[in-house]
Amino acid sequence: MKKAAIENRRFTAKGLATRDRIVEAAARLIHERGVAGTTTEEVRDAAGVSSSQLYHYFEDKMALVRAVIAHQTDAVLGAQAEFLGRLDSLDALRRWRNLLVRNQRALHCEGGCPLGTLSSEVAEVVPEFRIDLNRAFARWEEGIRAGLRAMHERGELRRDADPDRLATALLAAVQGGLLLTQIRRTSKPLENALDTMLEHIASLTVPMRQRRRAS
Amino acid sequence: MKKAAIENRRFTAKGLATRDRIVEAAARLIHERGVAGTTTEEVRDAAGVSSSQLYHYFEDKMALVRAVIAHQTDAVLGAQAEFLGRLDSLDALRRWRNLLVRNQRALHCEGGCPLGTLSSEVAEVVPEFRIDLNRAFARWEEGIRAGLRAMHERGELRRDADPDRLATALLAAVQGGLLLTQIRRTSKPLENALDTMLEHIASLTVPMRQRRRAS
Repeated sequence: MKKAAIENRRFTAKGLATRDRIVEAAARLIHERGVAGTTTEEVRDAAGVSSSQLYHYFEDKMALVRAVIAHQTDAVLGAQAEFLGRLDSLDALRRWRNLLVRNQRALHCEGGCPLGTLSSEVAEVVPEFRIDLNRAFARWEEGIRAGLRAMHERGELRRDADPDRLATALLAAVQGGLLLTQIRRTSKPLENALDTMLEHIASLTVPMRQRRRAS
Repeated sequence: MKKAAIENRRFTAKGLATRDRIVEAAARLIHERGVAGTTTEEVRDAAGVSSSQLYHYFEDKMALVRAVIAHQTDAVLGAQAEFLGRLDSLDALRRWRNLLVRNQRALHCEGGCPLGTLSSEVAEVVPEFRIDLNRAFARWEEGIRAGLRAMHERGELRRDADPDRLATALLAAVQGGLLLTQIRRTSKPLENALDTMLEHIASLTVPMRQRRRAS
């Protein structure tokens, strides 16, 4: 947020609102049609701005796509803000799992993960896109890892459990589960992937009695 | 294979070779640039055929993309043919895991899964594409599930383990692991995702002594 604020300080509040409108229109079109299937003219028309306005805020399509990646990163992580950084109990993990599944059902399992979809389309096209997406997934993973590390440090996870490895595996379960959920049009794959991981994490927890003895 | 043979019976051997050349060129270009970023003219030139030859085999771009999906399905599943349908031991699962990791390293972790990438790009564009991809993933999952079911039936997996759910979770781990591996340019995420799943499956196996007693 801080970085975005610095980048945007040259724009007025009205200018920022226009910029946001362009990014939101671009994000929606790109999520529906892909980057290659979306022209800046279509974004301009969908946002209801002129070409000169669009190019005032984004010097080219690449700048616009990077803004869309940043926007989708904030949207995807924002929707989980209540949980990321706080997944430090089986209960919190289960409630987060329920949120992800509920979101997919509300979307009729259409569209997949905006970040995963963008990754598959643009990761090999422009190096900067991949780097932006790598940063997005790193933030997401960090939000998962923090809680697992806390559980480990408090002795709630077995000493030989590796919270960092579990965090990567959980994020992979989310991404793979979302992809299969999109293709199959049912939330079952996401549920199966997450429930299996949560069961595994549960199997690595230390029973309360032993936990007290250890501390 | 049977269906393809019926569809292609009107072509001579030479005709089939030409058709294959077109599909391979299309698959390569699409994997590099995406469906929207690839024109039939580019495929025609890359395959070294004329427009009339291309349209003799594929009436439109949609037909060509469906042939590419079929081609990539055979390529992805073919590369694992030694394992799919035979993943009925921890040893087989580990060797399969090693194959997938080795493949990514050989590709410098570039490109991701051809089926996953296609899915993200075209699943929402044309319903037939999603249906074809759904069938591809179903075949892949079936190849994973068969072995886990065999382990379960032989009493090697605990009675309360669900081999079908584990198979979906394993395929999700592969897909999510491949996506993160592509974005991070290291095979670590795929290794973490698969090793976590394999560890979980190992934790659900029944010790040999109890197994004998049960039978």
